[in-house]
Amino acid sequence: MELARSPLAPAEIQQLPPIEGVRLATTNSGIRYKGRDDLLLMELRPGSTVAGVLTRSLASSAPVDWCRKALKGGGARAVVVNAGNANAFTGKAGMQAVDATVKAAAGAFACKPTEVFVASTGVIGQPLDAGKITDKLPGLIAALDADAWSKAAAAIMTTDTFPKTATRTAKIGSATVRINGIAKGSGMIAPDMATMLAFVATDAALPAKVLQSLLGKANEQSFNCTTVDGDTSTSDTLILCATGTAKGQPRIASAGDKRLAGFRKALDELTRDLAIQVVRDGEGAEKFVQIALTGAASDKAAKKIALAIANSPLVKTAIAGEDANWGRIVMAVGKAGEKANRDKLKIAIGGVTVATKGAVAPGYDETPVAAHMKGREIDIAVDVGVGKGRATVWTCDLTHGYIRINGDYRS
Amino acid sequence: MELARSPLAPAEIQQLPPIEGVRLATTNSGIRYKGRDDLLLMELRPGSTVAGVLTRSLASSAPVDWCRKALKGGGARAVVVNAGNANAFTGKAGMQAVDATVKAAAGAFACKPTEVFVASTGVIGQPLDAGKITDKLPGLIAALDADAWSKAAAAIMTTDTFPKTATRTAKIGSATVRINGIAKGSGMIAPDMATMLAFVATDAALPAKVLQSLLGKANEQSFNCTTVDGDTSTSDTLILCATGTAKGQPRIASAGDKRLAGFRKALDELTRDLAIQVVRDGEGAEKFVQIALTGAASDKAAKKIALAIANSPLVKTAIAGEDANWGRIVMAVGKAGEKANRDKLKIAIGGVTVATKGAVAPGYDETPVAAHMKGREIDIAVDVGVGKGRATVWTCDLTHGYIRINGDYRS
Repeated sequence: MELARSPLAPAEIQQLPPIEGVRLATTNSGIRYKGRDDLLLMELRPGSTVAGVLTRSLASSAPVDWCRKALKGGGARAVVVNAGNANAFTGKAGMQAVDATVKAAAGAFACKPTEVFVASTGVIGQPLDAGKITDKLPGLIAALDADAWSKAAAAIMTTDTFPKTATRTAKIGSATVRINGIAKGSGMIAPDMATMLAFVATDAALPAKVLQSLLGKANEQSFNCTTVDGDTSTSDTLILCATGTAKGQPRIASAGDKRLAGFRKALDELTRDLAIQVVRDGEGAEKFVQIALTGAASDKAAKKIALAIANSPLVKTAIAGEDANWGRIVMAVGKAGEKANRDKLKIAIGGVTVATKGAVAPGYDETPVAAHMKGREIDIAVDVGVGKGRATVWTCDLTHGYIRINGDYRS
Repeated sequence: MELARSPLAPAEIQQLPPIEGVRLATTNSGIRYKGRDDLLLMELRPGSTVAGVLTRSLASSAPVDWCRKALKGGGARAVVVNAGNANAFTGKAGMQAVDATVKAAAGAFACKPTEVFVASTGVIGQPLDAGKITDKLPGLIAALDADAWSKAAAAIMTTDTFPKTATRTAKIGSATVRINGIAKGSGMIAPDMATMLAFVATDAALPAKVLQSLLGKANEQSFNCTTVDGDTSTSDTLILCATGTAKGQPRIASAGDKRLAGFRKALDELTRDLAIQVVRDGEGAEKFVQIALTGAASDKAAKKIALAIANSPLVKTAIAGEDANWGRIVMAVGKAGEKANRDKLKIAIGGVTVATKGAVAPGYDETPVAAHMKGREIDIAVDVGVGKGRATVWTCDLTHGYIRINGDYRS
């Protein structure tokens, strides 16, 4: 099935500059797709550090199981990613496929197996032929190129309609460091985690432990605040590598180091940028929805209520129908199971207060709200009137397109 | 919007016999619908007892708030139900509308206000004009009829495409008692509770406390085992009234009385029958899905995993697409958050084992499974391999029809 480019796609794909110490190459593996690259090799220079966040699914894929183990080593030399087959629920054969890939890459780069990371995305439950990956490794290694970020972003796509890229710079001391990221969605998007695959690299010099702390927090306010369909993947993987090639950077030993403030902000922004791009490519999405939840008992409670709204099929179909049906938002708040004061509940859509103090706003005029609902960007603000907890989450509408894509994915 | 009758509707609507001590009448209220009855009055003879299960939504409607209070009285003389306006999130005016309705009915029946139960279903957040109900009460009372069960079932419908009725008989001692029930769905169907409105009446003589115990258990294995879209209504109401008119029934003082075994079984069956009819009328449903979950750590865990499968948009759209995409079932098991042994997981569709021991079944032939997926009744059996917990839940597929109905409900 050919998918049209999401109407919510950014006008322009961000071009990513090289990051010293990172090279990439892509090719067609013959696993599933024809006429496009679907295999990515990312090389990191020796001494690079790594952090990762992986799906909490109890049915995690073989590559996820491997990454969980390899992350303990703290170092990375290569990342191998294929699209089209998730190598999930593939039993012992799945782990053997991972082992074969890791062994081949570790041999080629003369590194430890635990410095090789793998990720697979696509259909669940079909055996993955690792030979189709390992056969391509020599060619990929020969083609490694510091300027292949765009190709890399395209090669990891499955039902995505546009590649997702983001880049930022930050100061650490007097050094300018760079961060690049690529991601792919776009179904099975829900915490935890909220994307299937995202790979981020920086030329900063940061110990693995520091990277892990920064990445965990960045993930919480980005991928874990997005949802397309509430379905959590078996394969969600977010990897951050640091090559340490930036010139003149002071040595950083702790995530609490104040000189990291700028880097932290840039990483938070970059992951949020990628996460929002994933939602903008949500399967069948016609509208991008931001839900700002305030007044909850805690930030955690706020996120839970916001996600209950974001995941409600009735809310999402109303948005698809351009219907300012705020009663369904009330319903979703009520079902979230977190404290909310019905009689203080306040709801605004597109900046217009539609409901307040447990009822429709006095003199409510639907005209401006109806106009807002016709746009591509829907803003919903809800205050549940019990405390100071707040969260913002992002989602998209639930459309005929979603059903078309997902009723026909394997065929 | 005119909705076509669900293809999953029962071939025949069960005709309900009279129950001594119960009379019903319906009319058009002018609240929302034209050309059909949308207001129901059910009269119970003096001395009738009552039990109820209500939504756990924190944004419960004014009628639900009232019923919660009135149930403490344990007696019922009248139930007033309107379709088209849920009287939910309507602030003080909502409670005033309930008060006006209750007061008018209590006056007419010369009973305590707490013997009057009210239920409203339909759009949330629009003020309900109680005058449109109270004005009709005298006419309804004049029209009360023991044989109006079918009309009653039709009058409480909103987006339902067929009325839901069920009847059973049981022995208590040597007495034969009868149970009748009507229900309406069909969106916002999820635990807790799983239906919007259901009214059950029996001529058995049972104290309110006994009724409440029986109803709570019946609800757990029926409405609370069904889901259409995972959205919990603000208005879910299940009421059971007992008139005590059955001849020769022994006096029952405790829900544990062994002479209740037959009645309990009949009530469980009747509520399950109604709950399944609600799912069969799920908005846009084309396929009825039964998910039997075994091998969980507890029955509660089994239900949670089964509902995670039943609520997964990816599973539901695959079923809509007649695609035996069992990988998505693996995904849903993984995201449920309850113990499951990935490497012992077993999945059968239509009685054919598709996956076992953490991978596709050896020699798996999709042909019979693909044929099963083309039918109206889909059977999924999953064993998660950790214990003896089990549960069966019912749902339907997620189709273009669901989106059409819910993107256009208010207009």
